[in-house]
Amino acid sequence: MSVKIALLGCGTVGSQVARLLETGAEDFQARVGERLELIGIAVRHLDSARADFIDKSLLTTDALSLIDRADLVIELMGGINPAQEYILTALKKGKSVVTGNKALLAQSGPVLYQCAKENGTDIYFEAAVAGAVPVVYGLRESLAGDKVLRVRGIVNGTTNYILDQMDQGASYQDALEKAQQLGYAEADPTADVEGHDAAAKCAILASLAFHSRVSGDQVSTKGIRQVSAEDAADAARTGHVIKLLATASRVEVAGETRVAVNVEPTLVRTDSPLASVRGAFNAIEIDSEAAGTLMFYGQGAGGAPTASAVLSDVVAAAGHIAHGGRAPLESCYARLPIADISQVKSNFRIRLRLRDDAGVLARVVTIFAEQGISLEQISQFPGISQGTSNLSISTHQTTYGEIDTVAARLKECAGVIEVASVLAMEGN
Amino acid sequence: MSVKIALLGCGTVGSQVARLLETGAEDFQARVGERLELIGIAVRHLDSARADFIDKSLLTTDALSLIDRADLVIELMGGINPAQEYILTALKKGKSVVTGNKALLAQSGPVLYQCAKENGTDIYFEAAVAGAVPVVYGLRESLAGDKVLRVRGIVNGTTNYILDQMDQGASYQDALEKAQQLGYAEADPTADVEGHDAAAKCAILASLAFHSRVSGDQVSTKGIRQVSAEDAADAARTGHVIKLLATASRVEVAGETRVAVNVEPTLVRTDSPLASVRGAFNAIEIDSEAAGTLMFYGQGAGGAPTASAVLSDVVAAAGHIAHGGRAPLESCYARLPIADISQVKSNFRIRLRLRDDAGVLARVVTIFAEQGISLEQISQFPGISQGTSNLSISTHQTTYGEIDTVAARLKECAGVIEVASVLAMEGN
Repeated sequence: MSVKIALLGCGTVGSQVARLLETGAEDFQARVGERLELIGIAVRHLDSARADFIDKSLLTTDALSLIDRADLVIELMGGINPAQEYILTALKKGKSVVTGNKALLAQSGPVLYQCAKENGTDIYFEAAVAGAVPVVYGLRESLAGDKVLRVRGIVNGTTNYILDQMDQGASYQDALEKAQQLGYAEADPTADVEGHDAAAKCAILASLAFHSRVSGDQVSTKGIRQVSAEDAADAARTGHVIKLLATASRVEVAGETRVAVNVEPTLVRTDSPLASVRGAFNAIEIDSEAAGTLMFYGQGAGGAPTASAVLSDVVAAAGHIAHGGRAPLESCYARLPIADISQVKSNFRIRLRLRDDAGVLARVVTIFAEQGISLEQISQFPGISQGTSNLSISTHQTTYGEIDTVAARLKECAGVIEVASVLAMEGN
Repeated sequence: MSVKIALLGCGTVGSQVARLLETGAEDFQARVGERLELIGIAVRHLDSARADFIDKSLLTTDALSLIDRADLVIELMGGINPAQEYILTALKKGKSVVTGNKALLAQSGPVLYQCAKENGTDIYFEAAVAGAVPVVYGLRESLAGDKVLRVRGIVNGTTNYILDQMDQGASYQDALEKAQQLGYAEADPTADVEGHDAAAKCAILASLAFHSRVSGDQVSTKGIRQVSAEDAADAARTGHVIKLLATASRVEVAGETRVAVNVEPTLVRTDSPLASVRGAFNAIEIDSEAAGTLMFYGQGAGGAPTASAVLSDVVAAAGHIAHGGRAPLESCYARLPIADISQVKSNFRIRLRLRDDAGVLARVVTIFAEQGISLEQISQFPGISQGTSNLSISTHQTTYGEIDTVAARLKECAGVIEVASVLAMEGN
């Protein structure tokens, strides 16, 4: 007997999965107890260029009949359709599915989990969140006996690389161009720099951590386009570094437990483990009641690292096919509502450009006082143009709603030339 | 129906497991699909002092009859016997076992794994290596589709705390006393500071990573008693920090693949993720062929964090009891031999105290040259006593055997007052 595998998609990750299934065949057999047999690879065009190690005789354009013959389907095509149709077809026929499709899971995860459950089979998606970093395992299994309070992480290597360059003094534009030259950023970098990729991952993490339905469009999302080299230099003054964080937390709002989900550039304390995550690496920090703080670190993208995550799922799925058993149930039993971000609390750092004017500092401080926001630190520096100064303010905890009101009022305040930036900040 | 659980041991970790089973009862039922029922706690003395939240009616001194009535046995007594007897009894009766007993696993792990396999049941041990840090999951499951090249980590919080204090200028003795005051170190700190605790964990990690039998006494072990504040200061000069590392690597020796296992104070580059692991935290770094470098970070000890790891195993085991299926097979199919440490390669840092003498530096350098060891850096500093100097040497890669020979020859070399330290060093 063998476990028959259908692979849908033969791009960067798919072709590495095919390669590793072949080179690791003996190991897989020892671990699963059965041979893993790749019976076909569904592609859009048979005649596209392929890596040398791809066995061309496995290629087919008929995904549905390939799925029919398989015990286990690996979906690595990406996109919503036809990936969704293929996955639902496979699950309804009782096949196990392994996918790395974050966009699809962020949009329709609960539908897929439910379909798997109704048909007595399993869907695995370790590769969908942070490439080789086993955070799905961490949340689904390692913390299955614990209560997660917060998950926050660097889940987009492109933006981490760009921010890292800016931390070393580069401008946003120069850093982006370097990332594109190195292949870390695409020609159209929108999905990365606007935070959409991170938002999809944030939704998946939140669903897993809090057993609730969270979709990508519910994540409050800010990208890194507005971050300047001045913000990076200002962050360093308070012992912080700017990271694009995806955060999902259990919060109490109006006497009710809710889930707050947001993606935004955030000032992280330099002594935080997340601050030392450099270049295109990913890291996810999980705070839970009993285990305390855990962190997982590794390569969040790339063909071979992502393929490694896919194959860990394949081994688990194949083991269950061979010996019975099930993947952990992805139920949404907790059903926590999503918090309105304006009611969620954080510390903030605000940078202003002011006219040199004896009264302006007092007017600025009064606006914070009137909104009931207490300040932790105020620093004033000479501005570049004559007759101006730069003011950086760190607040104590307040809500996103209050800080938006303050920012709007500051824009109207006499003597304030510009509200240069408002960034969330990790408190002390 | 319910899954009946017997708990053996009610110390720091055991009592937290009992507490979490009670407070998380609803969550567990939602995740497993069955109720988890703690049917008894086996203890040595019924009348010892216990935490308030322990239900005294569950206590018994008759472990064997408690095991008889259970579906799942959690062993948290520690020590070799009677823990081993109880675990073997449970496995032979087809019960699942969850244990946090590193000493027992390092000595007899393969016997227990084999016994579980023969009796069609499972043994889980996430809590045995690094407390809440899910490195057993990482190696058993996340990298099941990959090939591990090296595992190295900080797996003993006590020594990491002491070295951290020394890095900030404290002496070994002061740092140890502070660790004892804070409860990080025991009154008799031998098992920690001599590296025995880390060696047991190293053996378990090596067995998992390389599917081979490795026991604690096969691990080449050096503790931190010999590390001085001067070593810490010298490490900083080359951009390193001293960490007690447990390392298990796949090495090629004499044309054969072997497993090298050792525990020793090592100079880690400050830009390595492991260097930033402070205080009593644990971290394990895994290098694998496809996934690249992964790191897992968190609390390696303490009642609640370790209990969280125990409960993740309990949820997995209970899920298999309720719905069928098996834990990953812990086979030793690879059977790689253990490498003789004297044949294993590393970079080294050697500190010498010399008499001020025109010829001594030449004699020292000649000894390295005659052993065929090339040097990366030589730094000379004035000594504390007049007429002496301190010499620090970084080598390129050589074997532990060669460096031992060099150290012995240096001790005999005219003008060398003392070989102050020989430490393994992470190369550039």
